[in-house]
Amino acid sequence: MVKKVISLEEAKRRLEEGWRPLPRVEEVGIWEALGRVLAEGVRCAVDLPPFDRAMYDGYAVRAGDTFGAEEDAPASLRVVGRVEAGEWPSVRVGKGEAVRIATGAPLPPGSDAVVMAEDTVEEEGEVRVYRPVSPWENVWRRGAERRRGEPLLPPGRVLGVREVGALAAAGVGRVRVYARPRVGVMATGDELEEPGRRLGKGKIFNSNGPMLCAAVASCGCTPVWLGVSRDSPRELRRGIERGISRCEALVISGGTSEGERDLVPSLVSEMGRLLFHGLALKPGKPTLFALVRGKPLFGLPGYPLSALLVFRLLVEPFLRRMAGLPQPSPPSVRARLAEEVGKARGREELIPVRLEGGLARVVRKGSGAITSLLEADGYLRAPRERERLRKGEEVEVILFGGGESV
Amino acid sequence: MVKKVISLEEAKRRLEEGWRPLPRVEEVGIWEALGRVLAEGVRCAVDLPPFDRAMYDGYAVRAGDTFGAEEDAPASLRVVGRVEAGEWPSVRVGKGEAVRIATGAPLPPGSDAVVMAEDTVEEEGEVRVYRPVSPWENVWRRGAERRRGEPLLPPGRVLGVREVGALAAAGVGRVRVYARPRVGVMATGDELEEPGRRLGKGKIFNSNGPMLCAAVASCGCTPVWLGVSRDSPRELRRGIERGISRCEALVISGGTSEGERDLVPSLVSEMGRLLFHGLALKPGKPTLFALVRGKPLFGLPGYPLSALLVFRLLVEPFLRRMAGLPQPSPPSVRARLAEEVGKARGREELIPVRLEGGLARVVRKGSGAITSLLEADGYLRAPRERERLRKGEEVEVILFGGGESV
Repeated sequence: MVKKVISLEEAKRRLEEGWRPLPRVEEVGIWEALGRVLAEGVRCAVDLPPFDRAMYDGYAVRAGDTFGAEEDAPASLRVVGRVEAGEWPSVRVGKGEAVRIATGAPLPPGSDAVVMAEDTVEEEGEVRVYRPVSPWENVWRRGAERRRGEPLLPPGRVLGVREVGALAAAGVGRVRVYARPRVGVMATGDELEEPGRRLGKGKIFNSNGPMLCAAVASCGCTPVWLGVSRDSPRELRRGIERGISRCEALVISGGTSEGERDLVPSLVSEMGRLLFHGLALKPGKPTLFALVRGKPLFGLPGYPLSALLVFRLLVEPFLRRMAGLPQPSPPSVRARLAEEVGKARGREELIPVRLEGGLARVVRKGSGAITSLLEADGYLRAPRERERLRKGEEVEVILFGGGESV
Repeated sequence: MVKKVISLEEAKRRLEEGWRPLPRVEEVGIWEALGRVLAEGVRCAVDLPPFDRAMYDGYAVRAGDTFGAEEDAPASLRVVGRVEAGEWPSVRVGKGEAVRIATGAPLPPGSDAVVMAEDTVEEEGEVRVYRPVSPWENVWRRGAERRRGEPLLPPGRVLGVREVGALAAAGVGRVRVYARPRVGVMATGDELEEPGRRLGKGKIFNSNGPMLCAAVASCGCTPVWLGVSRDSPRELRRGIERGISRCEALVISGGTSEGERDLVPSLVSEMGRLLFHGLALKPGKPTLFALVRGKPLFGLPGYPLSALLVFRLLVEPFLRRMAGLPQPSPPSVRARLAEEVGKARGREELIPVRLEGGLARVVRKGSGAITSLLEADGYLRAPRERERLRKGEEVEVILFGGGESV
């Protein structure tokens, strides 16, 4: 049934054409906003700073009163009050007067500069100023950073630690962000058993379920585990129906090849529109994409390494677009091939490699081997037109992400 | 009160000496394990694969029966049954016999190889084999990847998408991981108002609270917001008591300098042991570290940029150790300084910069300016013994993380 295979690029083109992700928007408080993506630009709710603010502990003065002050000839001013951070000044600074002021406190009316405490001596209600200040020296003018209503953050900005701080400072308590898309994950196969249970004869553990749910979460989406479907058209159809009604996209692993029990291609053709089936890619040939009731359905190979590689190359970019996140940019390094690698012409190959002192060594275990997932540091993409890669040839190794960036 | 300042390195040494983080351990299911850190090594619960497994669709045979087979002279074998993935074979392969087998299905007893379907033709209960196979060809031998009980993942491994898949495949349903430490966050200051509320006269919004909670979460810890404490010894003491009883560590911002309302240093000296107060670092001088009832308490400067930089350099490494995570390795780039930068000798300076076409341009807004957080791409560390950095000098810029890696 996998008759007419297409390239990864053609597959991406058909996805683009067949389906435009429309991110949903929701509102969240800034305390819960870390890692979310702004759906709308945000403007300052207040002037930043909100008032003329003292930069240091010292005295609020009229700058003109300090002109000419020096070590030998200090200006002497009468201290008429004090103002702390968080207070609003109740006193006015007149000519020849000063108000003691704390860092961050608002400047009293009449004053236009702050003399730093270290340039003064206070005694019996008088402060001697030993260094002149110019107008607005040591003062953060109201609105100097941003005026109320001015743009603070653009739409599409991912909210990290710094952005959360800036939103808070600007008085923005809630923001409109893209909602995390709900993505259904299903594994198919009579042989699959739940990890942690006792393994029946002839069974293997369901590794794609937990792995693909984790992969979905790593794309800023909420995974919805739909369970294992036996290789029965009725059960599989029911699972897809359930997933389509509860989720915004579906990812199914297994059952996508050309064997008698590979039920997914014919079933989704019946239920919706199959946009492609079969990639000129190794591993990853039995990959399909369909629209069922207008919702995207990705069918991935059953082998874990194959499933994960196709997920990263094809599914992740789309899920990230649904989530409003920027496109993935996995880190990569250049390395020399430790050995010659033969391949079939006419299809791209994804070759898992381990990095050893600047050399890329092929992890040859087959895509069914789960431990190749652990032993490879990344993979290289061998172009479809090549028949072999030479030993010592420089290649780009796309690194598997660390476990943390999730 | 900030009299004897110490270097960042000396501060780290005192932290190390004063307090050894002891991570707590908890058990989680692998479906919830993404991003967690293994507290103990994990062994395979089963052989991987659990049985001799067919790699392809085809026929399970005795390899010896196919020796000498070729295009013109196929070996002819009697088909005595079939076995699908997930089934356990009920039939034995005798001499001259074959069993039809699906990818992933267990080899029937008696057979020792799989002939790929594409090398055969089946007709009237007989299969003609046009290519010989050697013993165990196209078979994944039981335990070939790992034997039951063999190590799968080492302690300290961060569980990413691939690790979750490998754990599942190996039948491991639950793992022992480091618990996320609960870290209390408090902001101090009479001037602080909750973001989203109306701003009172002389007040500013509490930006450090949400920002430091986000920063704590970015270190694999669970932030516990303890609220804003007014500058009152009674309220501050009550907040610290509450935090110490509910959390494993505390981070307090503001009130750590030398003004009259900087109550944190004297209060924590009374309540516990002050290990240092004052860093030879700009910004970041009013930083302190204390142990209160044996629990670590970090006092950070009140200015947001200062607080975040000190958090990244001093607090993050320790929180990550509590969480069992590897030490931070923020990405950095080399760039040339766009301008000369003067600094005071005798203290290290952290200088926020913006990157523009390979040039590092200083963001000069002061550490109180919240927008410097947004406009800087990272910062450089100007060594304490330098008095100026030259225009065009190559510097290392430590990048602020993207918002996603949280």
